[in-house]
Amino acid sequence: MPIDQFFHLFIPVIESELQAAIERANGTGMVEFRNMLTYHMGWEGPGAGPDACGKRIRPMLVLMTVAAAGGNWKNALPAASAIELIHNFSLIHDDIEDNSELRRGRLTIWKKWGIAQATNAGDALFALAHLEMLRLSEILPAATVIEALQSLDQTCLHLTQGQYLDLSYENRLYLTEYDYYQMVEGKTSALLAACTEIGAIIASVPADTRQSYQRFGKFLGLAFQAQDDLLGIWGNAVLTGKSNDSDLVAGKKTLPVLYGISRRGAFYDRWVQGSISSQEAPAIAELLAADGAQESTRYQIDRLTKQAIQALESAHPQGEAGTALIELAYQLLQRKS
Amino acid sequence: MPIDQFFHLFIPVIESELQAAIERANGTGMVEFRNMLTYHMGWEGPGAGPDACGKRIRPMLVLMTVAAAGGNWKNALPAASAIELIHNFSLIHDDIEDNSELRRGRLTIWKKWGIAQATNAGDALFALAHLEMLRLSEILPAATVIEALQSLDQTCLHLTQGQYLDLSYENRLYLTEYDYYQMVEGKTSALLAACTEIGAIIASVPADTRQSYQRFGKFLGLAFQAQDDLLGIWGNAVLTGKSNDSDLVAGKKTLPVLYGISRRGAFYDRWVQGSISSQEAPAIAELLAADGAQESTRYQIDRLTKQAIQALESAHPQGEAGTALIELAYQLLQRKS
Repeated sequence: MPIDQFFHLFIPVIESELQAAIERANGTGMVEFRNMLTYHMGWEGPGAGPDACGKRIRPMLVLMTVAAAGGNWKNALPAASAIELIHNFSLIHDDIEDNSELRRGRLTIWKKWGIAQATNAGDALFALAHLEMLRLSEILPAATVIEALQSLDQTCLHLTQGQYLDLSYENRLYLTEYDYYQMVEGKTSALLAACTEIGAIIASVPADTRQSYQRFGKFLGLAFQAQDDLLGIWGNAVLTGKSNDSDLVAGKKTLPVLYGISRRGAFYDRWVQGSISSQEAPAIAELLAADGAQESTRYQIDRLTKQAIQALESAHPQGEAGTALIELAYQLLQRKS
Repeated sequence: MPIDQFFHLFIPVIESELQAAIERANGTGMVEFRNMLTYHMGWEGPGAGPDACGKRIRPMLVLMTVAAAGGNWKNALPAASAIELIHNFSLIHDDIEDNSELRRGRLTIWKKWGIAQATNAGDALFALAHLEMLRLSEILPAATVIEALQSLDQTCLHLTQGQYLDLSYENRLYLTEYDYYQMVEGKTSALLAACTEIGAIIASVPADTRQSYQRFGKFLGLAFQAQDDLLGIWGNAVLTGKSNDSDLVAGKKTLPVLYGISRRGAFYDRWVQGSISSQEAPAIAELLAADGAQESTRYQIDRLTKQAIQALESAHPQGEAGTALIELAYQLLQRKS
């Protein structure tokens, strides 16, 4: 069964699980509260629809890991849904913290309802995610649920550590690759590692297999972020102005930029002079490429992807889901936008 | 053993449990992250000390309930600490959402570190609280831990529902007593109910006893809030200007104010004319008392306190901790400030 068929099979089930979870926040006098959450999840309000929902990569990864690890993916639905809710809680708060007005082409929840209501709506998703996870105990042994929750909450802590570092880096010119990876491990990679680790926990695999799945998710997340950094500067849509502004305009200290700074070349000389306009961005992206940053980032993506695939192989994923999991990894890492 | 001795016995153990929990957020490059949390908890930074810590009523209530319900209070330390962390997570976010610059006489965390870092620090306490709760599984059966977590996360959801209502009430002139209690049940009462319910769960009491303890916490919370509302308008320190401004100046729609509005008397005529200055507050508090709002609020406090004590009695609390729990309830409700 090719990966697309897994999406066709899983996505509708994931959506209905998520919808049932959100309904738990409903109650007398709570109409607008529910509206905020269904708007953010992409189901209601202006611009609602599949594009507004995002790709639901994380719950897909949970279910496919369970299947590839020999478990019953249906048992893992509350966990898949919980992780997507955690992801969305963190998006709501990140958008406030990063002052982002748009998310998937729509106004962010704080922009529509104000910071106070949006902060609180994010907290509600955090609580709902935990209530979802606890529903696992209707099917699985309590000790398994505790293990899954330990992984989830360790990850939530890690997310806040990554976000703390990201915010604290704004005022620092010099960052090392170590600083970068420490931040990205928390912000991006930890939640993907939780997807595959929790999938492995639910499938009751041995400890070393669980660790292999966890490492697969972790390196997939790191590779994904490095790929994001590459596209944020040299992606076709970015260069032609068809998509968001270049990361160079936003002044983001991404992997290629850190490399460029460390080279002390033509890019560095321009970078230290201050902010970059949309018009200048393509030329400065060329400077950065000439300094070797594009090549270096491609090398990192390649290295991280290999580590992800190696970890996955050492977990010995089974059957069609196992093959599809490898396919999903390649698909995520070869995207063009 | 009188209640004071329980405080002397429990508070140092609670503080060290909390400190160990917060240390889990520490790591390379995380100094300022840890500083934010230890500042907020009252241990470090300007103005640190017992006054900055708050009374730790919630963890006290957990431990005393466990003891009164015949359990071993030491087993419940992670739960006591978890609930105090949840309380503090919600204080950090409430201060942002209510635009409050001071908490226990010190600058709030968002005022010192900005909204972005403060929101994220609150999220970190949320995650740490759950990691604390999960530590219960080192001592107690996994199924008991799941039950305690279900109570906690249902409560966290309830907190956000109460906060949603509170924020949404700001723009409404007419609120009924029903609206008021719905909001207060979420904002104040739910977490106290969780203290006594989780204490009962850990002591493994039968379902009806657990429900009695839960109701004790719930009515204690409602009575406490009504008392807070009374003191916020007619408390000595408020009237003499020795404490914070009167709730009348802040325009808060507390229980006495809702009563005054419903009477359509002299207070109502003044209230609809707009904001009240500190100088006017004592005279308007007299108008409100003359309309019967003080007497009505006292009646409500009395009614709710009786319901709390009745619920506690039907739980048949045992030994010195049982007696002290009743004493704690009366102490909380007879406070003068």
